[in-house]
Amino acid sequence: MKSIHLAEHIKRFVGLNPVEEQKLQKHSKHAFLDESDFLLEKGQACDSLFFVKSGCLRMYFTDGLCQEQTIQFAIEGWWITDYTSFIKNLPSDYYIQATEKAEIIILDKNNYEILIREIPQLLAYFNQIMQINLAATQTKNKYMNSMTKEELLQLFCKSFPEFIERVPLIMVVSYLGILGHK
Amino acid sequence: MKSIHLAEHIKRFVGLNPVEEQKLQKHSKHAFLDESDFLLEKGQACDSLFFVKSGCLRMYFTDGLCQEQTIQFAIEGWWITDYTSFIKNLPSDYYIQATEKAEIIILDKNNYEILIREIPQLLAYFNQIMQINLAATQTKNKYMNSMTKEELLQLFCKSFPEFIERVPLIMVVSYLGILGHK
Repeated sequence: MKSIHLAEHIKRFVGLNPVEEQKLQKHSKHAFLDESDFLLEKGQACDSLFFVKSGCLRMYFTDGLCQEQTIQFAIEGWWITDYTSFIKNLPSDYYIQATEKAEIIILDKNNYEILIREIPQLLAYFNQIMQINLAATQTKNKYMNSMTKEELLQLFCKSFPEFIERVPLIMVVSYLGILGHK
Repeated sequence: MKSIHLAEHIKRFVGLNPVEEQKLQKHSKHAFLDESDFLLEKGQACDSLFFVKSGCLRMYFTDGLCQEQTIQFAIEGWWITDYTSFIKNLPSDYYIQATEKAEIIILDKNNYEILIREIPQLLAYFNQIMQINLAATQTKNKYMNSMTKEELLQLFCKSFPEFIERVPLIMVVSYLGILGHK
């Protein structure tokens, strides 16, 4: 199973010396999840940023028809969180669940604040990560606003053939906003 | 017309002393737009971040049926850019256009790099701005994945009654992904 170390990922964007690597390790936690295990459940405050070292997570909510609507995936090398809950300390509307065996690095808000104070270039790292996240979101919105359901699914399968083999199709379909009753 | 100074906006999130305010002014540009003026046109590289001091911008693309699909709005106090083009220096697929008379602060990549080096807390500011942007995006996706066209439009009109009066309904409809042929 592919695995991406957080320190190595950070060093693709900004410098990190051995002392800083130790601080990073000290102020983050590891979680090992089996398929279907939850990192976050609806009603809990999402007070952490989650980095996927290996495996895959999805963030979903349950709609009025009790359908699970996936709004985001995160495979190895991606960050995921419920930003509304994280910023406002509100109970989350979402579940974050492993779609396969996964190893996660958890950075809670307190440790995040400590780390960006002690390793200031981490802010530049997170800046670039979020710019990439926003770029991906804009592209997804562009496709969702201009393609039929069939075209969307075809493009996704063609663009991410390996990913399609890793997660159930129903999750992909809901992620593309083409599940159900609209 | 409501107007939000960039320095005041930044000071809601991080400190900024008078010398830093001067640097900010020195390394940013102003643009005054009339309704329908463009800040960016398809094919140009989007090398800047745009802050709306007053007025309103929209970012849109033209789909295969020649319909203008708005994927984002930015009113006073919001930042907008084509992140894919900004990060990768690629020609943009989008137009960024004023939907009403607007005053814009332009931060090109070069000046952005200078400013985050000389005023490091700007990175913390942009981090918080992007977290808020990602939170709004997640919420929009949640609604788009679980509501009918009619419910979406009703919720938007109820949530943002003043905004609805400022922009043509067809732009709102395309922003909600409920225009056209899907």
